[in-house]
Amino acid sequence: MIPKKMKAAVLHEFGKPLQIEDVLVKEPGPNEVLVKVITCGVCHTDLHACEGDWPVKPKQPLIPGHEAVGYVVALGRDVQNVKEGDIVGVPWLYSACGCCDYCITGWETLCQSQQNGGYSVDGGYAEYVTADARYVAHFPANINFLEIAPITCAGVTVYKGLKETDTKPGEWVAISGIGGLGHLAVQYAKAMGLHVAAIDVSDEKLQLAKSLGAELIVNAREADPGIYLKKMVGGMHGVLVTAVSPIAFKQGLSALRRKGTISLNGLPPGSFDLPIFETVLNRYTVRGSIVGTRKDMQEAISFAVEGKVKATVRAARLEDINTVFDEMKKGEIEGRIVLEIARP
Amino acid sequence: MIPKKMKAAVLHEFGKPLQIEDVLVKEPGPNEVLVKVITCGVCHTDLHACEGDWPVKPKQPLIPGHEAVGYVVALGRDVQNVKEGDIVGVPWLYSACGCCDYCITGWETLCQSQQNGGYSVDGGYAEYVTADARYVAHFPANINFLEIAPITCAGVTVYKGLKETDTKPGEWVAISGIGGLGHLAVQYAKAMGLHVAAIDVSDEKLQLAKSLGAELIVNAREADPGIYLKKMVGGMHGVLVTAVSPIAFKQGLSALRRKGTISLNGLPPGSFDLPIFETVLNRYTVRGSIVGTRKDMQEAISFAVEGKVKATVRAARLEDINTVFDEMKKGEIEGRIVLEIARP
Amino acid sequence: MIPKKMKAAVLHEFGKPLQIEDVLVKEPGPNEVLVKVITCGVCHTDLHACEGDWPVKPKQPLIPGHEAVGYVVALGRDVQNVKEGDIVGVPWLYSACGCCDYCITGWETLCQSQQNGGYSVDGGYAEYVTADARYVAHFPANINFLEIAPITCAGVTVYKGLKETDTKPGEWVAISGIGGLGHLAVQYAKAMGLHVAAIDVSDEKLQLAKSLGAELIVNAREADPGIYLKKMVGGMHGVLVTAVSPIAFKQGLSALRRKGTISLNGLPPGSFDLPIFETVLNRYTVRGSIVGTRKDMQEAISFAVEGKVKATVRAARLEDINTVFDEMKKGEIEGRIVLEIARP
Amino acid sequence: MIPKKMKAAVLHEFGKPLQIEDVLVKEPGPNEVLVKVITCGVCHTDLHACEGDWPVKPKQPLIPGHEAVGYVVALGRDVQNVKEGDIVGVPWLYSACGCCDYCITGWETLCQSQQNGGYSVDGGYAEYVTADARYVAHFPANINFLEIAPITCAGVTVYKGLKETDTKPGEWVAISGIGGLGHLAVQYAKAMGLHVAAIDVSDEKLQLAKSLGAELIVNAREADPGIYLKKMVGGMHGVLVTAVSPIAFKQGLSALRRKGTISLNGLPPGSFDLPIFETVLNRYTVRGSIVGTRKDMQEAISFAVEGKVKATVRAARLEDINTVFDEMKKGEIEGRIVLEIARP
Ligand SMILES: [Zn+2]
Ligand SMILES: [Zn+2]
Ligand SMILES: [Zn+2]
Ligand SMILES: [Zn+2]
Ligand SMILES: [Zn+2]
Ligand SMILES: [Zn+2]
Ligand SMILES: [Zn+2]
Ligand SMILES: [Zn+2]
Repeated sequence: MIPKKMKAAVLHEFGKPLQIEDVLVKEPGPNEVLVKVITCGVCHTDLHACEGDWPVKPKQPLIPGHEAVGYVVALGRDVQNVKEGDIVGVPWLYSACGCCDYCITGWETLCQSQQNGGYSVDGGYAEYVTADARYVAHFPANINFLEIAPITCAGVTVYKGLKETDTKPGEWVAISGIGGLGHLAVQYAKAMGLHVAAIDVSDEKLQLAKSLGAELIVNAREADPGIYLKKMVGGMHGVLVTAVSPIAFKQGLSALRRKGTISLNGLPPGSFDLPIFETVLNRYTVRGSIVGTRKDMQEAISFAVEGKVKATVRAARLEDINTVFDEMKKGEIEGRIVLEIARP
Repeated sequence: MIPKKMKAAVLHEFGKPLQIEDVLVKEPGPNEVLVKVITCGVCHTDLHACEGDWPVKPKQPLIPGHEAVGYVVALGRDVQNVKEGDIVGVPWLYSACGCCDYCITGWETLCQSQQNGGYSVDGGYAEYVTADARYVAHFPANINFLEIAPITCAGVTVYKGLKETDTKPGEWVAISGIGGLGHLAVQYAKAMGLHVAAIDVSDEKLQLAKSLGAELIVNAREADPGIYLKKMVGGMHGVLVTAVSPIAFKQGLSALRRKGTISLNGLPPGSFDLPIFETVLNRYTVRGSIVGTRKDMQEAISFAVEGKVKATVRAARLEDINTVFDEMKKGEIEGRIVLEIARP
Repeated sequence: MIPKKMKAAVLHEFGKPLQIEDVLVKEPGPNEVLVKVITCGVCHTDLHACEGDWPVKPKQPLIPGHEAVGYVVALGRDVQNVKEGDIVGVPWLYSACGCCDYCITGWETLCQSQQNGGYSVDGGYAEYVTADARYVAHFPANINFLEIAPITCAGVTVYKGLKETDTKPGEWVAISGIGGLGHLAVQYAKAMGLHVAAIDVSDEKLQLAKSLGAELIVNAREADPGIYLKKMVGGMHGVLVTAVSPIAFKQGLSALRRKGTISLNGLPPGSFDLPIFETVLNRYTVRGSIVGTRKDMQEAISFAVEGKVKATVRAARLEDINTVFDEMKKGEIEGRIVLEIARP
Repeated sequence: MIPKKMKAAVLHEFGKPLQIEDVLVKEPGPNEVLVKVITCGVCHTDLHACEGDWPVKPKQPLIPGHEAVGYVVALGRDVQNVKEGDIVGVPWLYSACGCCDYCITGWETLCQSQQNGGYSVDGGYAEYVTADARYVAHFPANINFLEIAPITCAGVTVYKGLKETDTKPGEWVAISGIGGLGHLAVQYAKAMGLHVAAIDVSDEKLQLAKSLGAELIVNAREADPGIYLKKMVGGMHGVLVTAVSPIAFKQGLSALRRKGTISLNGLPPGSFDLPIFETVLNRYTVRGSIVGTRKDMQEAISFAVEGKVKATVRAARLEDINTVFDEMKKGEIEGRIVLEIARP
């Protein structure tokens, strides 16, 4: 029995707290399904959305959230590869056009006509959410709903970011920033057969990285990551900067060996200083990477389901969302917060 | 008969004019050959060397020049794949270690132990020059010595830079800067089956680009290259910035379509502003590219020998070198200047 | 005004002549369009279909044809990126599932749930044909309907086959078989910046290849293609075998230089003798290639629309189809036959 | 003190037993080093050499062996990156020309002018062996000389063969044949982040594969590997056939999912039946792979030194070589036999 109304966290004005309200449950349109949300991770992007930080603004009122995982409970017209009872995720890439150059070559993340969950359409901070059946993430039974939720955004983002470094098994990659993204990146890199170095300014986080498989760790407050990593192993083949900041970028670049690639995850405003002489002489590659395609998602989930990658999570209630946002602003969060919205 | 002495242009102090002097002809060492120079192109790098512009300084006194083409007239010990009478080029990549990770994977241009012609060893502004037989460029008979000289540096540099954009036949590439490098880049791009757009601030140079095959031209003083090229064809798959300047970089980046790659040729000091949001959201790739490997050289020469690429050159005498440098500083040179040192 | 009935060539029994009949015009279903056919090329695959040659049999009764080009005259439900009046092609890849591993990575040609035009669904030997709007080929105005039709199958097939040889501008590719596929392959290869050698047993066809840009030609009745091409230029980087026959395969393989790739277009029964020692020692790659994706199609069409590739065609009427099939069986056709079904 | 004479196993006539003799110790020539052999693995290729099985015959008299590991004890002229006391391996790729297309692009294994250890030059079945300093394998101190020897041929061969399947972490690869090559391949594949299936006809060997990390095993005498692996996981992304036999090839091909690659290691005479229809329709890639480059060697050794790959070996004395060959002919060997020639 699908109710007419549901509880949701709703944004009415940028910068203001979300309101916990009763809103109508949407009916799934053509190619859409209705998903009963079990958990929904809280992502920095949600905070950016609610603050109105980016040039293109989200819809309003908005139900944020793009890391929802739950059960399909109703199908719209023409739905084909999803059925009631399936466990699915409703990701940032809510839908895409299906026919542009990017969509037909497996790069739907670059589609100019994409819809984004919890941004241009309502998302998962609610008891129910609609999803485009062609773009949902698919899960097997017996998953841990709490731990799996962050894989649908944080996980796939760093997994794709690692792929974009063009490194291969046996090579060295540095993960810069061991937070919600970085602690997953360390695990993905290990599962991909890479040697891993971790860069952060917190010894605690570096110890976490070590326990997750990082073979070298460097506290950027105490040592120059570039000098240290070049001394130890000749430099990195790839670097993934999860916490995109000018200083992290500069340190990451300096840690690269010649012909190395630095991959950037994150969407802050502003710009980096790219040193020309070094970039040309060393044949550096700098590459932006945003979320991941459906294929990346499927692969990222497989690593998690096989137990090779596990998110450090803390549960919260939907009603706690404004507190969670406050903690996020202060940088107080370890791993990821996941909203528990219903029992599995 | 190899004389004991030869005429050469010699740098004794940074920033001072070169001296035309009689110096000893070197004997070729192990793996080396002695080359009687017919022509030697004049490259911006030579000027940088003579001004002492870069952090790592050249040898002193120095005979500059890394675009020499001539005949092998003597062989040192152990030389194997070169014989007397061969026509060879003595490039920037004078030699490399042969056994580092880069050398054994066809990336000797990144060898940390490389020697550079006209920089760490004496170069081609002279009647004779030694070369490492394992690293010379090879030419067939019947070449035009004047026109072919710039291929050994300017040609191979832009050819490699184009390869590094990862574009393929039928895609669009923009060449930013239609000077000594750019006018060759337009031709290479066409020969590689690419659609070509040219960006410059001189209508005259843009007309040259058009006559060489550019299908779109845009004067960056009159129109925004990014807006124009996106309007016309949806943006570029690749951009090659031959005149590395902050404004050219910014314009080139804005001309890219999503997933595009911008490749940088050139070694000025300073840095670029890389906008993070755009780079990540559009999955841009920024890549430095410096000269080219022996394989790149061989390919770049083949295109020229087949008549698909031809440098616009002006001949000068060795004695004119200081005047040529003056013109270069003023940006007055069309195409490339090539020193005619002997008759073929 | 769309009529209720249309003229079509219909297969009722394998191996029997097609019947020219009046049949009902289908209504386009969801995501489908109705296309008024102007031209439809005749492909060997159509003959295979009508003879029932392959393990998986086509529908019956069947309207063959998968090279139809025409105008969209009606839209079914949910059609998005196609509108009435558009000029489209209805290719072999009629539709695919959109959500399997292949579909989401730009390899819909490998989708196990694909429908095939003129095989599992009715095709273009008729005045009207339905098409899946998401999989049609798109054309600009002002095309030559006769010449463009074969691009939608023969053209895209050889273009993809060439891409699958992993060759790049400046390298050598041999086209084995200069018939309906091969004469297009020569042109695509040239447009892609490749050096082209042509192998056939007919001097007339080899002269055609030469006139289309082949730089080397070898009559396999008079010389061993492998020996000749290795003597002339050291062997081929890639070989495309358009007329898949054991002898053509053997000759193609022997023409490869080490590390070369031979790509196979064509679906005859039977098998090839792959010599193990040569394949391993020379690091040969053998690869099958079937039609092309929507992106390949778009690229293949662009080359044709730009005038770089042009099919040699002969017009026929729908009523002539059985005669055309007879000629095809006898191997008497030059280039491609295209049915003119309506005036543009 | 380097003696004038040494003990060696020498072939004087094809098909006859090797003679244990005292022969002169060679002096290292230019670029060469003299290596005091500690261990030398016994490879099937050695048997082929001694039987004269291949079209190009080895030198005679011949000291076989291309898996020698030992200490550098003397340097010839011009040796640069090797010094006395270094631990090196003397592999099949004894030397290459250094300047052909293959040599300058990191594919020296395809050099037409290569020398092969224990084949065209004397090898490691002896107390001393010369080596080209530019092509030796490099080892750190503290290696296990017995276990590391097979890495220099069997190890690098399967590692390269796996790379040539173009699979990536998270995908499935099947190893066909769990013998001296295959038991290493399973370990390399795991270290590269791949899922592994093992195919053999011996339950004992399949259990070994399982203990080394294979997740699926199939006894080809009891089940059809293609049907089983497709049923279990949809088929393989890659297949490595280590025991190149027609039946193994056929089974391997049938285990591939669409777009998969089958890689062949091994040099038997004869040919395979390549089914055309399946190869084209499924876009299969078939690729030969022989030994590995210096870079592959370095990587293969790293995995072993890090403890991720370990050869199953049995020690033998130089005097036992004819008995070892007899066992090899009978297929009685588990893992690899390694000759212990001196104490480390
Ligand atoms: Zn997110
Ligand atoms: Zn799209
Ligand atoms: Zn230069
Ligand atoms: Zn080097
Ligand atoms: Zn599909
Ligand atoms: Zn066809
Ligand atoms: Zn071996
Ligand atoms: Zn070579």
